[in-house]
Amino acid sequence: MKSTKPYYAVIFTSTKNEDIKGYAELANKMENLAKQQDGYLGIESARSEVGITVSYWGSLDAIKQWKQNAEHLFAQQKGREQWYNWYKVRICKVEREYEFER
Amino acid sequence: MKSTKPYYAVIFTSTKNEDIKGYAELANKMENLAKQQDGYLGIESARSEVGITVSYWGSLDAIKQWKQNAEHLFAQQKGREQWYNWYKVRICKVEREYEFER
Repeated sequence: MKSTKPYYAVIFTSTKNEDIKGYAELANKMENLAKQQDGYLGIESARSEVGITVSYWGSLDAIKQWKQNAEHLFAQQKGREQWYNWYKVRICKVEREYEFER
Repeated sequence: MKSTKPYYAVIFTSTKNEDIKGYAELANKMENLAKQQDGYLGIESARSEVGITVSYWGSLDAIKQWKQNAEHLFAQQKGREQWYNWYKVRICKVEREYEFER
C-alpha cells in the first residue's frame, strides 16, 4: 500500500478460545470483503499468543462504513459469541511513517 | 495497559530473512528495555508471515527518546544489517478505542 494523504490504522488485537470451528473461513471471507470496501488501503495480520490485525483506511468514515457492513456485523457477532475471549480495537491516525528495504 | 489520556501507537511491521541468529535474544532484551522507558504504556507482538509489534506510548517525545536510546540504536542497526528484509514503522495517534471481554 502507498498513501501520501493522511490515513488511518485500525489495530485489532485479540485472544481466541479453544472453539475456533469456522473461524479461519470467516476471517478469510472478511479480509476479502474488506479489500472491496471504499477507502480500504491495506491489511496486515499475524498471530502468536495474541492475534494482531492492522487494517488501513483513507478516512474515519470508511472505517465506520466497514464496521457497519452487514456481513461484517454478522462476523463480529460470531466472534463475540464463539471465538474471542478478548479483543481490543484502536482507531488511529497515522502521523508519520518510514520504511526499510534490503 | 490503561490510559484515559491521549496516547500513541508505534506499529512496526517486518519480514525477516533466514539468518536469525541472535534475533530472539536481542528482541527480548529490547522489549524489556522498552518497558523501562519513560512514557511506555504497553506492547503487543505476533508473528506469522509478517511480524507485527505494536508499542504504546504517552507522547511523541517518549517515542523519540526510545528511538534514540543507545542500546536500541545498536539493535536497530543489527536488524537492518542482519535480520530484516523489510520493515515499516508507523507512528499513530490513538483516536478512539473499545474493548470486548467474555
